[in-house]
Amino acid sequence: MRYHKIPDETIRRLPAYLRGLVFLSEQGQQNISSRDIAGHLRANPCQIRKDFSYFGSFGTPGVGYNIKKLIKQINRILKLNAGHKAALVGVGNLGSAVMTYPGFKIYGFEIVAAFDSDPKKIGRKVNGITIENTSKIQSLKKRNISLRIIAVPHNAAQQRAEELIKAGVKGILNFSPCYITVPQKVKVISIDIAMDLVRLPYYMPAG
Amino acid sequence: MRYHKIPDETIRRLPAYLRGLVFLSEQGQQNISSRDIAGHLRANPCQIRKDFSYFGSFGTPGVGYNIKKLIKQINRILKLNAGHKAALVGVGNLGSAVMTYPGFKIYGFEIVAAFDSDPKKIGRKVNGITIENTSKIQSLKKRNISLRIIAVPHNAAQQRAEELIKAGVKGILNFSPCYITVPQKVKVISIDIAMDLVRLPYYMPAG
Repeated sequence: MRYHKIPDETIRRLPAYLRGLVFLSEQGQQNISSRDIAGHLRANPCQIRKDFSYFGSFGTPGVGYNIKKLIKQINRILKLNAGHKAALVGVGNLGSAVMTYPGFKIYGFEIVAAFDSDPKKIGRKVNGITIENTSKIQSLKKRNISLRIIAVPHNAAQQRAEELIKAGVKGILNFSPCYITVPQKVKVISIDIAMDLVRLPYYMPAG
Repeated sequence: MRYHKIPDETIRRLPAYLRGLVFLSEQGQQNISSRDIAGHLRANPCQIRKDFSYFGSFGTPGVGYNIKKLIKQINRILKLNAGHKAALVGVGNLGSAVMTYPGFKIYGFEIVAAFDSDPKKIGRKVNGITIENTSKIQSLKKRNISLRIIAVPHNAAQQRAEELIKAGVKGILNFSPCYITVPQKVKVISIDIAMDLVRLPYYMPAG
């Protein structure tokens, strides 16, 4: 089942809710009010209630939301139940950081393959994964793992993206500071770390 | 002048508009329609017109928006006119990637100082910047540069954040996969790269 009516902005906030809820659940907490979630995430309680209402999750007055149930619902909506295996293309500074990033586990994500075109890097291991030649990207199609998520750092993003799409990839996480053009059926999420930094001065007091 | 009425969601989109507009301006283009901006950014033309209307920028029918004027307005709103110097704390994989990231320039951002607590890293140079001991963070206060923006990767984020706030930092870009607690007057923007990856399966076709 796909929850068609959930706005993108809500989808964008779900991973943050999920991370916070998993943390609280691990601490042994069972229920939480929208106000407490808001406090933890520095968010707006009304917005949280509205976001949760999209997937029919209403809290009990005086008790709040059941944390485990919320986690289950968010996981189902984001299609995270099954776990997801990802391949990474471009093992530079950013790629290495992505490979060793500790934040993927709670979402059931695992990076299981890495590619680079630099002969010095091919064959080396990062976080237990042997870096393969980018010429092997097409092999993703034959492998018995649902490799559909790819982080493309650095330049050459467009070319690498096209190779990945040929190799059957349906979702691309783009870390390069440029847009890439893909067919309609492929979803690209771009992360430009500069874009987040750039919003800071707006919110800072003058002087 | 602070444009108080602009919603956070619009502010969040402005850096993307800015990046696209700077690119087109460099190509020699003078005007652009909201539909063309939407095409470049894979965004919604109505939303773009709405976003631009917040800062009183209306296009001319049949001509569109003047690109240079738009760039100027967005820069003014985001307070980017003056240029911003930033210090980085934690020169691991992610920190190194941030230091060598090519995407900051178009926003007038420059990383001019870097700190780490690892004795092996202190004294080493990354991108022309000598890594200093984190014990020197307090020196930021005395330096004659407006060091107000900091990227805090890895763990120890809370402790580093507190040291930075003591050193007069007013804006923190947090790359660690955890929340940090700061006084009201300090603005924190958190980037959790896993959170963006995690949204991909939702948008991907089944199978």
